[in-house]
Amino acid sequence: MTERVALIGCGLIGDSWAALMTAHGHDVIAWDPSPAVLDDFAARVEKARAQVWQLMPQKPETGCLTIAATLEDALAGANWVQENAPEKLALKQDLYAQIEAVVGDAVIIASSTSSLTWSELSVGMKRPDRLITAHPFNPPHLMPLVEIYARDQAIRARSVAFYAGMDRQPVVLKRDAVGHIANRLASALWREAVNIVAEDIADVSAVDAALVHGPGLRWSVIGAHMAYHLGGGEGGIEAYLKHLGPSQERRWFTLGSPKLTPEVCAKLVAGVAEEAAGRSIDTLANARDVALIRILQTNS
Amino acid sequence: MTERVALIGCGLIGDSWAALMTAHGHDVIAWDPSPAVLDDFAARVEKARAQVWQLMPQKPETGCLTIAATLEDALAGANWVQENAPEKLALKQDLYAQIEAVVGDAVIIASSTSSLTWSELSVGMKRPDRLITAHPFNPPHLMPLVEIYARDQAIRARSVAFYAGMDRQPVVLKRDAVGHIANRLASALWREAVNIVAEDIADVSAVDAALVHGPGLRWSVIGAHMAYHLGGGEGGIEAYLKHLGPSQERRWFTLGSPKLTPEVCAKLVAGVAEEAAGRSIDTLANARDVALIRILQTNS
Repeated sequence: MTERVALIGCGLIGDSWAALMTAHGHDVIAWDPSPAVLDDFAARVEKARAQVWQLMPQKPETGCLTIAATLEDALAGANWVQENAPEKLALKQDLYAQIEAVVGDAVIIASSTSSLTWSELSVGMKRPDRLITAHPFNPPHLMPLVEIYARDQAIRARSVAFYAGMDRQPVVLKRDAVGHIANRLASALWREAVNIVAEDIADVSAVDAALVHGPGLRWSVIGAHMAYHLGGGEGGIEAYLKHLGPSQERRWFTLGSPKLTPEVCAKLVAGVAEEAAGRSIDTLANARDVALIRILQTNS
Repeated sequence: MTERVALIGCGLIGDSWAALMTAHGHDVIAWDPSPAVLDDFAARVEKARAQVWQLMPQKPETGCLTIAATLEDALAGANWVQENAPEKLALKQDLYAQIEAVVGDAVIIASSTSSLTWSELSVGMKRPDRLITAHPFNPPHLMPLVEIYARDQAIRARSVAFYAGMDRQPVVLKRDAVGHIANRLASALWREAVNIVAEDIADVSAVDAALVHGPGLRWSVIGAHMAYHLGGGEGGIEAYLKHLGPSQERRWFTLGSPKLTPEVCAKLVAGVAEEAAGRSIDTLANARDVALIRILQTNS
């Protein structure tokens, strides 16, 4: 079933969603309060959609992309709202009030929020259950993960089906949490990655290389819990926890609690510059996308 | 240049090293104090070597694999020692004393240790500089990462060349640290992965799926530091640290410090069982290897 999606917020997350959604046949009506953001929006969507198509052996008819002049225009006839506004609580709450004043009861409002929680965002809504968080991972048109929190069971099921229908991998949270799952994991890992640089154990580029050619590669294939299941030999995770659980707990105490002081920040900036070796952000992002597409193609 | 490698310890790490080394033309003389471990050693090496070959477009002549009856036999004529003994400090130190009593001054002793440090291991050695830590990531014949700490500059260069010559990605530490780089990162991430399950934010299988389809996939392509460089827009990591550094520091405080209590362990065991859905350790490990090989083939 194709939806008519009101896309609210047309920055980097917005163009990526629009590319994915239209590539999968959904109609998208996009709106952003800043006309400057909309200038090159269609071009950005087209570029990202060409990447999505590289992952689609069968292409349905492309959905329509319309740019709306007002929020009300964007919402007219929409049965799904994907909100990608800046991460400001009051701004989002205000948007939801405006949206609820216009749309019908069955319309879902899905927030792409990375750092706010459903409990905060839903305060003051007339129908809080229609709000879900549906957090994509950057860049959303390539990364399969969408983290979903929905309080209502039927709405949860409908949301999972909507994103799964666009070749996403929806992952459901049992309760809402700051950073959902993925950014909590990423934040925990980065804290130690910063610590290793701060403590002069290794350079930025060495930390990144160790991650990419070691745990990152492995975690692209099996999760952290499953990896320890396989690390436990025939006894699996039960044996792992029994024999190596205590040594993991001891290691947790040796991990660092760095602070992002000016000195540490300067080391990170210098280390990333050395790793980038003169390549621009665009060049690096393109290289990342090409590599992601190559890996994703092995699964399709 | 092909080496004659004395391989000390023939468990899971040993067979993997033997497969990789012989596939790249090095001669391997393997020894293990336990005859039972050696029973199926050659068969395990052969199985792993067939996987290594899938990643080698050009195959040099395969090195010889010999099983030695004694430690002295294994060391005769060796110019490289790869030690994969159990993670017991006294046991390894005792081994090094026996090895040093027999081998020439130019022979390198490389320890595959995951949890001990060079500073601990080298105590009591006649020539401590000849000891290096060269930690592979499981399964070593497929995972490219080898983490190296070598105090002497010339020995460090020789070690990097040795592992790079077998299509590995050697990463050099500036000083030795418990868990090197990769296992520190993995341990930091898993602590939060355990916390998310313990706090009922999400199930084991949801945490693993979020990692595999989100940050794991991305970290197989770019490192954590570089990811934030790309997340900072045109200003790169400098802009990221300025604008989002404080919110990362705040998030670090919201991460958990779980304990592996019986209740938490039971949740992990039940969650992994649900995720494994009846698949045996062997089936899961084979699926992991097939997926790893498919991804590694996209780079070759």
